[in-house]
Amino acid sequence: MTSQETGLDRRFVLAKAIAQEAGAMALDYFNRRDSLVIETKRDLQDVVSIADRNVEQLIRQRVEATFPEDGFLGEEFGHTPGTSGYTWVVDPIDGTAPFVNGMPNWCVSIAVLHDNTPVIGVIGAPCHNELYTAASGKGAKLNGRVLTLDPSRTIQNAMTGIGANSYVTPERVGDIVSQLLHAGGNFVRNGSGALMLAYVAAGRLVGYYEPYMHAWDCLAGYCLVKEAGGWYHPFPTQGEGLTKGAPVVAAGLGARAELEKLAGLA
Amino acid sequence: MTSQETGLDRRFVLAKAIAQEAGAMALDYFNRRDSLVIETKRDLQDVVSIADRNVEQLIRQRVEATFPEDGFLGEEFGHTPGTSGYTWVVDPIDGTAPFVNGMPNWCVSIAVLHDNTPVIGVIGAPCHNELYTAASGKGAKLNGRVLTLDPSRTIQNAMTGIGANSYVTPERVGDIVSQLLHAGGNFVRNGSGALMLAYVAAGRLVGYYEPYMHAWDCLAGYCLVKEAGGWYHPFPTQGEGLTKGAPVVAAGLGARAELEKLAGLA
Repeated sequence: MTSQETGLDRRFVLAKAIAQEAGAMALDYFNRRDSLVIETKRDLQDVVSIADRNVEQLIRQRVEATFPEDGFLGEEFGHTPGTSGYTWVVDPIDGTAPFVNGMPNWCVSIAVLHDNTPVIGVIGAPCHNELYTAASGKGAKLNGRVLTLDPSRTIQNAMTGIGANSYVTPERVGDIVSQLLHAGGNFVRNGSGALMLAYVAAGRLVGYYEPYMHAWDCLAGYCLVKEAGGWYHPFPTQGEGLTKGAPVVAAGLGARAELEKLAGLA
Repeated sequence: MTSQETGLDRRFVLAKAIAQEAGAMALDYFNRRDSLVIETKRDLQDVVSIADRNVEQLIRQRVEATFPEDGFLGEEFGHTPGTSGYTWVVDPIDGTAPFVNGMPNWCVSIAVLHDNTPVIGVIGAPCHNELYTAASGKGAKLNGRVLTLDPSRTIQNAMTGIGANSYVTPERVGDIVSQLLHAGGNFVRNGSGALMLAYVAAGRLVGYYEPYMHAWDCLAGYCLVKEAGGWYHPFPTQGEGLTKGAPVVAAGLGARAELEKLAGLA
């Protein structure tokens, strides 16, 4: 640690290191999932739940060891408030459905909030050997390569990611798909909202919309998208908002207006 | 070649070798697409079209060199009838939208028909280093590992792939999504129909439905699904049907009835 290093810098270094360690651990579970089912005599869903919890525990321990005064919110074990003004918001395995079913579209998502704003976003996609990293004012990168969004990309000339879960009615999901196609767009749903937000930051998708997501699903992706030059619809990170769900929209600037409209936010 | 080798065997060996060579060529275009745009002063879509055509030419040349009497149907250059009773049906790059946008979900799809039935299906997904291979009566494999579908998987306890294109109305696509969710299912759309069919064969998706696809998009996947123990809705491969589109449905046995119903075929 040099004297120029800020609290943000030190947490950014740690977040990247943890994402890689946690990603390797999750990948090991992923590759061994069938034999673990046999060894543990549990079903696949249980094995994945164990993986999810153990990966979150690893991340929690690593953060606590270096920044015991930071808050921590994980999908599996909930919220532990801190005193430093920094809060880590973590989804140990985002995309558990793809993970359970043997598809590569899952990731480890680590955000750090400062004063309720996501200032660090790190997403690791171990099956693709990809690490997406961003911190406030420092830009976004994929495996070290700078990500810069092209504002000429639109709903019409690019692909849009969508997501849904049981909080959203089937009719609403069908309507989102239908409206997006009517607008001349095209959709992708790979089963991991956090990874699709990382794809927005990488310019692979021009935007992402899901009517209801939690903080641990979206905050790392939000930081990535903003640092790549995009926009996101603010998530209610204050007080109880942090543990409740909200609409999530993020986009390159050329797709913002149409996605806000699709989400009923404009 | 030994005396026991059949025409099917020899074509299966060739299909696997070509899929790997063509996959490597396509991957090279994929990795260099941004610099190719600059070098050739063309737009990205043009660069991908050139890749598509050149990969198909490679496949066509390799088939012609060994089996000049076989028919050949490719997405880019159409149908050349043969005299041997075998016809190769090829999509050089399935999932050009993901390819253009820098996503890994694209593949090379090679089928061989004999007497209008798909008897060989080989799908290579170079970004994932995966080769799916099947031939009639010989089973299906992923990177050499035997694929066997579990008939207890259903729409409700697994994920279903869907696809759409401009031949299908936005309302119909929205309706498919909505019906699938109402039935307690969940959907994935990764942008490559052929790859999602390969995922059905691998048990990653329990089924796939797209209202309108072409022969080159589905026949390799169909052979894979059947050899893994699944079912597919027959494609009209006779006469002009081979170059026209049709509904595509493939599934593990536990999801067949519900997907046939969803597709309006039951």
